[in-house]
Amino acid sequence: MQPTFPAETFPAHTPAASQVFTTVLAHGPLTRLDVARRAGLSPAAVTKAVRPLIEAGYLVEDADAEARPALGRPANRVRVDGGRALFTGLKVTGDEIIGVLTDLCCRILVARRVPLTGRAPRDVLAVAVDLANELRTEADGFGVPVLGLGIALAGDVDRAEGTVRYSPFLDWHCVPLAGPAGAASGLPVTVDNDVRALTVAEQWFGDGVGLSDFAVVTVGAGIGCGLVVHGRVVSGAHGVAGEIGHVPVDPDGPPCHCGNRGCLEAVAADAAILARVREVTGSDVAGTAEAVALAHRGDEGARAVYARAGEAIGRGIATVANLLGPQRVIISGEGLAAYDLYARQIRDGFAAAAFGSAARCEVRTRPLPFEEWARGAAATAIQSFVGR
Amino acid sequence: MQPTFPAETFPAHTPAASQVFTTVLAHGPLTRLDVARRAGLSPAAVTKAVRPLIEAGYLVEDADAEARPALGRPANRVRVDGGRALFTGLKVTGDEIIGVLTDLCCRILVARRVPLTGRAPRDVLAVAVDLANELRTEADGFGVPVLGLGIALAGDVDRAEGTVRYSPFLDWHCVPLAGPAGAASGLPVTVDNDVRALTVAEQWFGDGVGLSDFAVVTVGAGIGCGLVVHGRVVSGAHGVAGEIGHVPVDPDGPPCHCGNRGCLEAVAADAAILARVREVTGSDVAGTAEAVALAHRGDEGARAVYARAGEAIGRGIATVANLLGPQRVIISGEGLAAYDLYARQIRDGFAAAAFGSAARCEVRTRPLPFEEWARGAAATAIQSFVGR
Ligand SMILES: [Zn+2]
Ligand SMILES: [Zn+2]
Repeated sequence: MQPTFPAETFPAHTPAASQVFTTVLAHGPLTRLDVARRAGLSPAAVTKAVRPLIEAGYLVEDADAEARPALGRPANRVRVDGGRALFTGLKVTGDEIIGVLTDLCCRILVARRVPLTGRAPRDVLAVAVDLANELRTEADGFGVPVLGLGIALAGDVDRAEGTVRYSPFLDWHCVPLAGPAGAASGLPVTVDNDVRALTVAEQWFGDGVGLSDFAVVTVGAGIGCGLVVHGRVVSGAHGVAGEIGHVPVDPDGPPCHCGNRGCLEAVAADAAILARVREVTGSDVAGTAEAVALAHRGDEGARAVYARAGEAIGRGIATVANLLGPQRVIISGEGLAAYDLYARQIRDGFAAAAFGSAARCEVRTRPLPFEEWARGAAATAIQSFVGR
Repeated sequence: MQPTFPAETFPAHTPAASQVFTTVLAHGPLTRLDVARRAGLSPAAVTKAVRPLIEAGYLVEDADAEARPALGRPANRVRVDGGRALFTGLKVTGDEIIGVLTDLCCRILVARRVPLTGRAPRDVLAVAVDLANELRTEADGFGVPVLGLGIALAGDVDRAEGTVRYSPFLDWHCVPLAGPAGAASGLPVTVDNDVRALTVAEQWFGDGVGLSDFAVVTVGAGIGCGLVVHGRVVSGAHGVAGEIGHVPVDPDGPPCHCGNRGCLEAVAADAAILARVREVTGSDVAGTAEAVALAHRGDEGARAVYARAGEAIGRGIATVANLLGPQRVIISGEGLAAYDLYARQIRDGFAAAAFGSAARCEVRTRPLPFEEWARGAAATAIQSFVGR
């Protein structure tokens, strides 16, 4: 089930009108002519779409002296009124839920973290709904209604159905989430894979603005990938896409939970790195932070494990670049805490495996704390609201 | 340089008008309402785009009794008049050029093969232009002008620039082709990678009709991949895309010409299979046909080489499915001559490496002789002509 909004709420009822709104959202303020150019629409179609959005208060017009031509009518610019509506976004990890309240421009107004009390669907749902309600209470202070809730989590998520088909960290299989969360919170709920949600936020508000083709690669507990091709986030015909974690990268790599050998995730995800650091150092490091600290202290064995993980990540990114030729790859995720330990190897691995001019793809890093992932969840709620 | 056509030639000067035409081209005959539904445009926009295309003779209207509603005005269907314009397409291999003359619906009217006299750019250009002229002479018999020439060849081709950045079979590096071929033939020339060209033909006229996301994987002298995502062929920001040949697939695989080890092409391309068959059988097989024959006669060593190649192809396809989640993968290429030797292994390799519901992607084969690749080249010329 897709969340449904009352038809009168948002006056953009055609794909073109939605596109006009999201163009202003990502690139505004813009003149109508600039919107038309960017969206590939006629100026008349833009003017027609803009009018009801201004009347309903979602867009506002700036009388802008600088943009005023010497002759003719003023080329006023339009922008989104961020304060017109609020949204909530939740990112669910295996241990906690990170929630944010944002405005319509996806600016974070309030952020909260709450630990999970258990991983069963009813436990997670209870904590999620409590947090969503708490954020909604905060919204009262702004005197603006919350219009949608986005929930993002790792795994195989069917956004159209609102179901989590598989979540590795929660050990969920085929859990309907949008329906129960909508019933309990009273809000239209959008459920999506967390990396795809983060990619939506990057596309509209982050390092993907203005790019038609880019990838977000996240490293940490899992290794994920969000892809934007031809200006749209790739979802996959059957809900699976961006599974960079199972690209084979290391001939001598260890077995992966998917049943194959040498997958990127089996070499470079947190658990794989930790296991390997324990193995090569013989030291009983408790967790990822300790493994990073050990390598930072100069332990050669631990450093070699990170170097190998970096090389593998670079090769995985090269496979994405060889298949899709993106303009940019943005690396993010908790794994960036170890970035100095494998940055060079990521670049070397990428350069070694990128084919021909695919190597021209820009690879950059961008630290994004979990609040930004929750913001991605809010972005998916905004996406549902505006009909994109 | 993109080929330029006189503005008056084809009366579809907006993206929407081009889209209307290509929707009718791929799905027609259609009523205007069906075109609007499929293209996501308003019926008014479709009616406006259709009128000048009918006046110029590119679309024709069928008074269709069956589609006539009981009440109201008849819902006439429109279709492309294939005979309104002709196009030529050339596929260049390392040994010969295959050329076709097609109508506007990309139906092959004439096909020719001419051997290359040499692989230097001037030699290939001379043979290509002679063949294009010969096909144009054939077109005189139809009394319809040839409006464009498409040239397709393997490698790193920059369509926007009309240059071949790298062709492995011709050993070309940075060869401008569209400019010289246009000057010598007097036709607007479109140059593209051959697998991408084939993918355009499959999207409009073949097994990709009606699919928004699919892949064409070609096996033979090289291993290539054409990708359609969100309804459009992926070109890559820097011209490289679909390089499935360099997806790492075999931990113990041989070195690849790209400098890596265990790439799909190093395991499953013709030359790799031939070298390995010689090695394991100790027999001095002369070429691919002999290697296939040896395996067909039951030689266990040769059969094992094909089995391993099939497993690798299946894993390469799984990587594409895991990243993009296409609805369908179409396997084609000269390598299909050996298909019975590795069909099961392709399916097994795919099933083993496909992640979650990505395995639901349909994998099918489709034999396409080189004339169909040349038709793909003609399809790119039609694409340039209609402004897509
Ligand atoms: Zn795996
Ligand atoms: Zn290679």
